[in-house]
Amino acid sequence: MAQNEVRVGREQLKDFTREVFIRTGMPARDAETEATVLVWANLRGVDSHGVLRIPFYVEEVDGGYMNPKPNIQVVQETAATMVIEADLAFGPVVTTFAMDQAIGKAKEAGIGWVFIRNTSHQGAMGYYSLMAAEKGMAGIAFVCTPPGMAPHGARVAGVDNSPITIAAPAKRHRPLLLDMATSVAAGGKIDLAIDKGIPIPEGWALDKEGKVTTDPRQVAALLPFGGPKGSGLAIMLECLSSLIINKPLLEPVLLGKEKQHGHQTQNSVVAAINIGAFTDVDGYREHIDNLIDGLKALPKAGGFSEIFVPGEPENRTYDDRFRNGIPLPEGTVSRLRTVAERFKVKMPSGL
Amino acid sequence: MAQNEVRVGREQLKDFTREVFIRTGMPARDAETEATVLVWANLRGVDSHGVLRIPFYVEEVDGGYMNPKPNIQVVQETAATMVIEADLAFGPVVTTFAMDQAIGKAKEAGIGWVFIRNTSHQGAMGYYSLMAAEKGMAGIAFVCTPPGMAPHGARVAGVDNSPITIAAPAKRHRPLLLDMATSVAAGGKIDLAIDKGIPIPEGWALDKEGKVTTDPRQVAALLPFGGPKGSGLAIMLECLSSLIINKPLLEPVLLGKEKQHGHQTQNSVVAAINIGAFTDVDGYREHIDNLIDGLKALPKAGGFSEIFVPGEPENRTYDDRFRNGIPLPEGTVSRLRTVAERFKVKMPSGL
Repeated sequence: MAQNEVRVGREQLKDFTREVFIRTGMPARDAETEATVLVWANLRGVDSHGVLRIPFYVEEVDGGYMNPKPNIQVVQETAATMVIEADLAFGPVVTTFAMDQAIGKAKEAGIGWVFIRNTSHQGAMGYYSLMAAEKGMAGIAFVCTPPGMAPHGARVAGVDNSPITIAAPAKRHRPLLLDMATSVAAGGKIDLAIDKGIPIPEGWALDKEGKVTTDPRQVAALLPFGGPKGSGLAIMLECLSSLIINKPLLEPVLLGKEKQHGHQTQNSVVAAINIGAFTDVDGYREHIDNLIDGLKALPKAGGFSEIFVPGEPENRTYDDRFRNGIPLPEGTVSRLRTVAERFKVKMPSGL
Repeated sequence: MAQNEVRVGREQLKDFTREVFIRTGMPARDAETEATVLVWANLRGVDSHGVLRIPFYVEEVDGGYMNPKPNIQVVQETAATMVIEADLAFGPVVTTFAMDQAIGKAKEAGIGWVFIRNTSHQGAMGYYSLMAAEKGMAGIAFVCTPPGMAPHGARVAGVDNSPITIAAPAKRHRPLLLDMATSVAAGGKIDLAIDKGIPIPEGWALDKEGKVTTDPRQVAALLPFGGPKGSGLAIMLECLSSLIINKPLLEPVLLGKEKQHGHQTQNSVVAAINIGAFTDVDGYREHIDNLIDGLKALPKAGGFSEIFVPGEPENRTYDDRFRNGIPLPEGTVSRLRTVAERFKVKMPSGL
């Protein structure tokens, strides 16, 4: 743990978060969902998607870009699909609802595929695919937002870094959970580096001149992983989500019809596959266990003492932080204090 | 064009390919499908998935690992999904059938998601997602095979490099078509380097000692792109396909129950999303056009004279080769000649 970090209990942090959002006008149940998803990210060590986002969310509510009391509506439906209008809901509020719908559709149709239009920042997407895994299904979720990543060959942003996540249930082991962006590093890691006052590695991002930068404050565009692969995947995910629900997020900025304004309007897809419609779920879980055991037992490459399966490093962090509290950098604590003062919410004990 | 390559007309190459497969016992219509998919790959410059594979396929038929007269059966079905037992069919034969089924399901259910069990090498997967795009739908396809790629942190193969492809229809432009492996380079590119007698770049693959090699003949395991990202995606695609249809391909090798034998048993998913169920297809196509135009007009990064969208470089190669013929390296020509002699099929004119 770094010198400039303090640890805070998960329940205290969740209570604080819920109280802040209630004071932005959000119903208590939705505030609970929002707090759960943010603190879950912190517990897993994905601090870039945790409570560090609270001050930004509050500003977004002020500006009318995030809606604490949205009118969430199912606007289209088939046997296996659904389109949900989010009305700028906080991401976790509409996305947990959407994944529940996907799971319901999958029960009957084998797969449930749900589009979410006009949501706001969704937090750590792994939470939603994990919801499916916890019901014995496979879960998929991905996101599109306005441009924040340079497509391969460009020196300015033109695509999103479209996080994508896939989960599958195990038996002895915890579910496999892949949660990755199509950029080399998630956007929130830039914010975290700012809060920690540390530089970012070369190759993560470009500045506004299109030059590679290591100063997180100068970042104008993320870089895609694998060049044309990350870039191409990001382009196609926009085609599979935003464009199908007629809400393009890249085109308006690319064609100069809209400025890139920094507000996080998002479209998304969450999907569930009903494993039990195809095979014995218990047998499936055992195969996942065997796969995990087999992968971890492979001979290690030089410099590696262990082979990790998707989600495993985050599970270890979870266990540590669940017991010992969540470390927060001073930058984050100080920005949370400003929010606490504004809304007259007591800071979590220890902070 | 390299000195040691000759060009052959697409029709001549297709006729040759069809005739060879008819002589392995395949019905003419299936041989036509197989030839179409292989030559399509060559036309697009994806030579690693083109006619270079013919000698291997012939050997696989000899060994009973590819079935020229399969009993393809639909074994399970829901409103939106289907499981197809391929009976070791040549990949293109069952996969074109499967994508037709996915398109049919999508018409009613919004999405069609079809699992293929026990197929053999499927060629260039982009062909199948493009089938959906040609019907005004979005297409997705991916593959799982026994281990051929080292998971992040391992020095031997433990996962597959699971190619994944996504297509979307445009209006003025040709469809967007992403077709990528989760390895740094597709496995067929190793074969192509052998046929061309050239080294491979560092970072593509490991030899059997687990050391990075540039000799394509020494390759024992491919390397994943983006470290844990490519590796994690490959693991999860096995969970989304093979394990759901109860036909694990990684586990038996990982647990030592099966030797990695080099025969290309594959499972696969092909899916179609019915754009017209959600929005006006013509409007969708225009949005894709605008997206393409917008991306291509972005300021270029240093060293780039053009920004390419997914599928665009291959389309240019296609146009050239459609007019001017397909160049084949001498290694490939010589191996095709052996096949021609065996089956008493005339080599394509010019070869």
